[in-house]
Amino acid sequence: MPQLRQNPATKEWVIIATERSKRPEEFKAPEEKETPSALKTCPFCPGNESLTPGELFAFRDYGTKPDSKGWRIRVVANKFPALIPTGNIKRMQFEEFFRYMDGVGSHEIVIESPDHNRSIATLDQKQVEEIFLAYKERYSSLKKDPRYEMILIFKNHGREAGTSISHSHSQIVATPITPNHIRHYVEEAMRYFDDNGECVYCNILKTELANERVILETDNFAAYVPFAARSPFEIWVQPKKHYSSYERISAMDTKELGFVMRQTLGKLYKGLKDPAYNFMILSAPCHEEELEYFHWHIQIVPRVASVAGFEMGSGIYINTVIPEEAAKFLRETKVE
Amino acid sequence: MPQLRQNPATKEWVIIATERSKRPEEFKAPEEKETPSALKTCPFCPGNESLTPGELFAFRDYGTKPDSKGWRIRVVANKFPALIPTGNIKRMQFEEFFRYMDGVGSHEIVIESPDHNRSIATLDQKQVEEIFLAYKERYSSLKKDPRYEMILIFKNHGREAGTSISHSHSQIVATPITPNHIRHYVEEAMRYFDDNGECVYCNILKTELANERVILETDNFAAYVPFAARSPFEIWVQPKKHYSSYERISAMDTKELGFVMRQTLGKLYKGLKDPAYNFMILSAPCHEEELEYFHWHIQIVPRVASVAGFEMGSGIYINTVIPEEAAKFLRETKVE
Repeated sequence: MPQLRQNPATKEWVIIATERSKRPEEFKAPEEKETPSALKTCPFCPGNESLTPGELFAFRDYGTKPDSKGWRIRVVANKFPALIPTGNIKRMQFEEFFRYMDGVGSHEIVIESPDHNRSIATLDQKQVEEIFLAYKERYSSLKKDPRYEMILIFKNHGREAGTSISHSHSQIVATPITPNHIRHYVEEAMRYFDDNGECVYCNILKTELANERVILETDNFAAYVPFAARSPFEIWVQPKKHYSSYERISAMDTKELGFVMRQTLGKLYKGLKDPAYNFMILSAPCHEEELEYFHWHIQIVPRVASVAGFEMGSGIYINTVIPEEAAKFLRETKVE
Repeated sequence: MPQLRQNPATKEWVIIATERSKRPEEFKAPEEKETPSALKTCPFCPGNESLTPGELFAFRDYGTKPDSKGWRIRVVANKFPALIPTGNIKRMQFEEFFRYMDGVGSHEIVIESPDHNRSIATLDQKQVEEIFLAYKERYSSLKKDPRYEMILIFKNHGREAGTSISHSHSQIVATPITPNHIRHYVEEAMRYFDDNGECVYCNILKTELANERVILETDNFAAYVPFAARSPFEIWVQPKKHYSSYERISAMDTKELGFVMRQTLGKLYKGLKDPAYNFMILSAPCHEEELEYFHWHIQIVPRVASVAGFEMGSGIYINTVIPEEAAKFLRETKVE
C-alpha cells in the first residue's frame, strides 16, 4: 500500500510509492572512467588562477600570494554570474502591472580543493573542515551588504545535478529578494512555534533521533533520512544547537560538520557509486535577527530519480525508496 | 545586465540571466532515430490491450469492443500506480508527531493515439481535439469521488521529461489532499483579487495580449511565454473565459484548445527538434465551487535546462533565454 507522508516543517506531502519500490542497490550509478588529478584546461586547477576572476578569499600555505598556487581552498566570483553586484535594487513596473528589478546580487564559487578529481567524499578530513569554515567566512562577509536578503550556499555534484565543471566546487549566491520558497519555510515554522511554543526542527530532530532513519549522530549534529523524504536517499544534516542562520556556527562546529558531511557524502559515494547530488544550506533570510522558530540545516538530494509533470504540477514528490530502508542502507555502508 | 522578474500570479521571482544567455537555436535537441509506427512489445499499441489494466474510457470506432482494437483514445489505470483507489483517507500520527495516511488516489493513463511514433505535435488535428475532450470526461468522472481533492492532468514527453514509455500518453492523478503548491497558487490569486477586485490571471492575459510574448491567439485561447518564464521556452496556454477548473471547458472549446496545443507543441517540435517537455493543467482544488479568483491554465515546460541546487534551495529559477526572444522564435516557427 503506498503511503502519503507529510513533512511537519514544510507541510509538504510526499508519496512513498511502494508499488514502484526499488531496492537501494538498484540506484548504483554506472562506473565512470578515472579523471586526472590535474587538467591543463581546468579553470579551477592550480596554475590556472588567471582563468578565473581574482580571489575573494582563500586558505593558503604560508608565504604564497593571492591568485597564484599554494591555496587549499579558493573563493572567486563566478565568471558567468547569474546576478551581478552593480545595479539598482528598486522594484520597477512594466506596463503598470509586471514587477521587475535589476539582477543585483553576488555569485561566488568555492573551489574546494586543488585536486581535480577528488570531492568531499574522498578529500582528507582536514580539507573538508576548511570548506565549511570558508562558507561561514563568506556568509558573514556577504551579510554585511545591506542589499542582500538571502544567502544560499549550495553544491551541484555531477552532470545530472547541473554542473558543467567536474573540479569539485560549491557556490554561494546572494539575492536582493527573499524568495517565496524561503518565506514559506519560515512561515510554516513560525505557525508551528505559535501553536506549540517549540521549534519544529528541534522537534523533528528529537523524534528522528529516537527512530530508525538516523544515518549518523555526533555530539552536535545528526544526519538522517527525513520521515517524508522527497526522493530516494534524501538526507538532512541538522545541528543540535538551535540557530536560524549558518553564520552562527562556531569554528569548532565547522570541523564537526565537516566530519559529518564527509562521512555522509562518503556513504553515498560508496553505497551508490558516486551518484550526482545537490546540497543546499538553508538559513533564515540574512537580515533577520536570530529566530526562535527557524533552524538552519542542510538538505542533500541525490539525483537518482527524475522530476516530471506530476511533481511540477502538484509539488508532491514520489519517492520509490522507503525512507527507513534508505537509512538502513546508508547506515550500514561503512566509510573510513 | 541580468534581470529579476516576478510572476504576478505566483509571486515567484525568476532570474533572466543575460550573462549566460543563449540563442534559441542553441537548444535544438539532437536528432533521434525513427521509431516504428507499431511495436509488438509496447503495452500501449493496438493488439496489446491485454498488457494494460482494463479500459476506463475510450473513443472507439463503431461496433468495436472494450479492450480490443478499434480505439482512437484509450484511458486505463496505470499498471504501476503511485496511488491506489483503496484504503483509508483518515490522517494518522506516527510517534504523536509525524502525519501520514494511506496512499489513496487514482492514477490513469491516457493513451493518446494508436500510432506508436506520433505525438500531439504530429497527430491529426481531430485526434488531438479528442485528447482534450477525454481529459474533460475523466476529470468529471474522478471529481464525483468525494475522497479526491486535487485532479492533475499532465504529460511527460521524452526521456528527460521523465517518461519510460515512448508511445504518446498523458496521465491523470487524483490525490486525497490538496498540496501546498496548489494552495499557494490559489492563496496568492485570492490576495490579488481582494486587493484589486479582479482575477490576476485575467489581468495577466490582458497585459500579455498587448505585448510581444504572445505565440498564438484564437477566439478563446492564447499561448504566450510568460513575462517571468522560469525556463527557456516555458509557455502558458490560457482560456480567455474565466473558469477555475478544467472541468468547465465546453466540448466546443476542447476542439479549439486542441488546435492551440497542437500548434504550440508543433512549434516546439519543429523549432527545437522535438525536445522533451512536461505540461500540466492547473485547476483549483476539485471540490471548490467556481472561484472568481483562480483561472485554469496549462503550463508547458520544455526540459532544455537543468534544475540544480540554486533552484532547489531558493525556488528561484534561472532562465538563460530572454522571454521576448523565446516568444519571437516560436511565433516565427511555422507549422501546418
